[in-house]
This record gives sequence, C-alpha cells and structure tokens, in this order.
Amino acid sequence: MTDAATVPPTDTAYEPSDRSRVKRQPDRATYDRDAVHAVLDEGLVAHVGLVQDGQPFVLPMVYARDGERLLLHGSVASRLARHLSGGTPVCVTVTLLDGLVMARSAFHHSMNYRSVVVVGEARRITDPEVVASGFARMVEHIAPGRSAEVRAPNGVETRQTVLLEVPIVEASAKSRRGGPIEDPIDLEEPAWGGVVPVRTVFGAAEPDVDTSTDQPVPASLVGYDRGAR
Amino acid sequence: MTDAATVPPTDTAYEPSDRSRVKRQPDRATYDRDAVHAVLDEGLVAHVGLVQDGQPFVLPMVYARDGERLLLHGSVASRLARHLSGGTPVCVTVTLLDGLVMARSAFHHSMNYRSVVVVGEARRITDPEVVASGFARMVEHIAPGRSAEVRAPNGVETRQTVLLEVPIVEASAKSRRGGPIEDPIDLEEPAWGGVVPVRTVFGAAEPDVDTSTDQPVPASLVGYDRGAR
Repeated sequence: MTDAATVPPTDTAYEPSDRSRVKRQPDRATYDRDAVHAVLDEGLVAHVGLVQDGQPFVLPMVYARDGERLLLHGSVASRLARHLSGGTPVCVTVTLLDGLVMARSAFHHSMNYRSVVVVGEARRITDPEVVASGFARMVEHIAPGRSAEVRAPNGVETRQTVLLEVPIVEASAKSRRGGPIEDPIDLEEPAWGGVVPVRTVFGAAEPDVDTSTDQPVPASLVGYDRGAR
Repeated sequence: MTDAATVPPTDTAYEPSDRSRVKRQPDRATYDRDAVHAVLDEGLVAHVGLVQDGQPFVLPMVYARDGERLLLHGSVASRLARHLSGGTPVCVTVTLLDGLVMARSAFHHSMNYRSVVVVGEARRITDPEVVASGFARMVEHIAPGRSAEVRAPNGVETRQTVLLEVPIVEASAKSRRGGPIEDPIDLEEPAWGGVVPVRTVFGAAEPDVDTSTDQPVPASLVGYDRGAR
C-alpha cells in the first residue's frame, strides 16, 4: 500500500496539515477527495467535537455534505452555537462500521471500518436564504428527492434553526478491511479466524398514526438504502 | 415526561454536574445508571474527544464498559497516550441510531437514537495484570465468551498495548423514539409521515483463508447479535 501521508496534494486530494495528518497507521489513510466524500455521503450521524473551558465535548449531530463544506444541525446545536459567534475549532468525525475482526489471539482482534475526520472551524449560517437551501440539503442527504416532497421551512423556522457550516479543507479518510492479521505462532495450530460482517439495514417505512391508509409511501423512501449512492 | 435534569442523584443514577447536565431538550435525557449502561453495552465504537493545543479531535475507538469505568483501545490510542501522562480531559460518546423520522415538513425531520456522553479524565493503565484483564474485558465486550476461545496476550503484547481507563462519574443518556412531531398546519392536508427503521445487522461469521473447512464457527460467534444483551 502507498503511504498516503507522503502523497502530495492535488486537485483530487486534501492537503494534510500537521493537525490533520494521520500519524498512526498512515498506510490506512488517504486524503483523496472522493474517498472522503464517499464516507461523508453514506453516513447519517456525525460526532462533532468542540472545546469548552478546556473540556472536550462530543455530540452526535445530523449533517450533510454540501460540496466542500459540511452542514451541521441537531438538537444540540445550541450548545455549539453559544460558543460559535466567531468561528470555533471543531472536529467532525463520521464512522461506518463494516466488520468485527475475530483473530486467534485477543491482541489481534480489530474492526473493519471506514471513517473520516474533518478538522476545521464552524460558523453559524445567518443568511436566511442560505439557511433555507441548507435545510433542503440536509433533507436530501437523508433521502434524495425528499426535499421536494415536504413543506419547505417558513420564516420562523428558518430563524429558529441553528445551522452551522464547516469548510472541508483539512480532511482524512481511514479504513481497514479484510481478515485478521495474525502472529505466525497463532497459525501453527488449527483455529478459527475471520470476520463478522456488520451492516446498517433500513426497514420498510412505517407510517405514523396521522397517515391515512391510502397514502402511498413517498418515492424517496421506497426501498430506502444508502450503500449504493 | 419528567425533566430528568431535576431528578436528584441516587445510587441508581449519576449526579449531573454543570458540564455533564443536558441543557437542550432535557426531557430526552436521563442520568439513570441502567440506561447509561445499556447503551454502552450495546455499542461497538465510541467517539472519543480530546483537546490538543486548543483544537478538538474526535477519534473512533474500540471500548468496553468494565463496571463503572470505560476501557479504551484503538489504533489511534497513541495520539491520546502522548497527551495522557497525567490524566487528560476526554469525552466519550456512544450513539445508536434507531430510525429516520420523516416529517411532513423539512423542519420537523429528525432521528430516533440512543446516545450516551461520558465526561471525564482518561489515564493509561500501566499495571500489566490490569492491562491483561482489561484486554479480556475488551474482547468480552465484542463477543461474550470469546476471551476464553483465544490466546491471551503475552508480555510483549501487554506492554505494547495502550489501554486507557475513564471512570464513569459524569454520564448522561439521551434518546428519541416515535414518529414525527408535526406542526398542526402540516396535518390539515393528507400527507405521509413516519419512520424508516434503522438496525445494525450482523452477518454469519466468515472464516479467513487460514481456517480449515472442518473448523466450526466458535460458540461466541454463532448467531452473533447485540440487541438482547
């Protein structure tokens, strides 16, 4: 494998800075834009880190990628927003778990995953039109086509909503795949080693009590899945 | 619903401090130990936040709950460990996604989830015997019974491993369930609203190339699932 940390920046890759360069197992890392985008586009929840009086906080948040920026929203945005008047350092991490790697020794157990870490500054979006289009982008991230099926936010909702943007300037993707990497001594006697695959599965859309029985499931939700986007 | 933030601490609940009290939507929060433990025991990946030169970093890590402490391990532990000689503030967040809440307006889209936030200090475990038992605990967290099926760590592996502990003193759980909460105006005309269920599904254990065809799947991995623990 290429040591991605040594790959020079190009139009197709992010330039690693000292703070965003992957130090540990750099052979599992890439700064390739498409690889970063693919993980961000498949994920649903971001774990967003911020610092408050020297204490880190990590909050799960709904997000969307909008070109080369991330949009963040969530019930917890208010904690962020109180500290974000000027642009506040954040770290946005998205992790997709693909498998549990079961080795023949405790030491070599591992996980297969794809993850992205974006290091940057978050700012609140204040322009109402940008908030409104950001709203649509968030809904599209969850279900493409859905924003045209639902009522767009009104003025009150737009003003109430704390929507944050984080430019994707410093970003890395990391992944592991495949079976266990064993110590040779553990292969001398026959023993089972392998992987338990992990998948995120979406059930059929379940209508709420206010949905009449003749309402068809919206097109954006029929056969909902995220793997193939 | 009870405002959990006002519930006094008991033997069965963590005591919220100013930094661990849930400010936003406290009716979705609890400090109940069993509720916190349940999420921690079902999850597989923790998102761990730390601060380095004022910049937050959030790293996905393997973890386990061991009574009232968390054990953390991962390929990224080295970044943490370099900054953890004395006990460093961390935030450990575990999120389980249960559903995508599809409202009739963009504004009321949401997610169903269960999450836990533990705020505390991480320290490296240095006692070799505690590292060894912590190893077993990590493997048991992934698959109960598995630690007895595999080779225990040897002295070199124990010394190489960065295992961190975080006492669970300040912790909160938060959750959302159920269908969309709509603006009355959106219910005046018939439209579909509901939930797309999300589940983490584990496939049948897949043997690696070094596993002979007559090796049975280990007992700990037969019908692997995490929901009912």
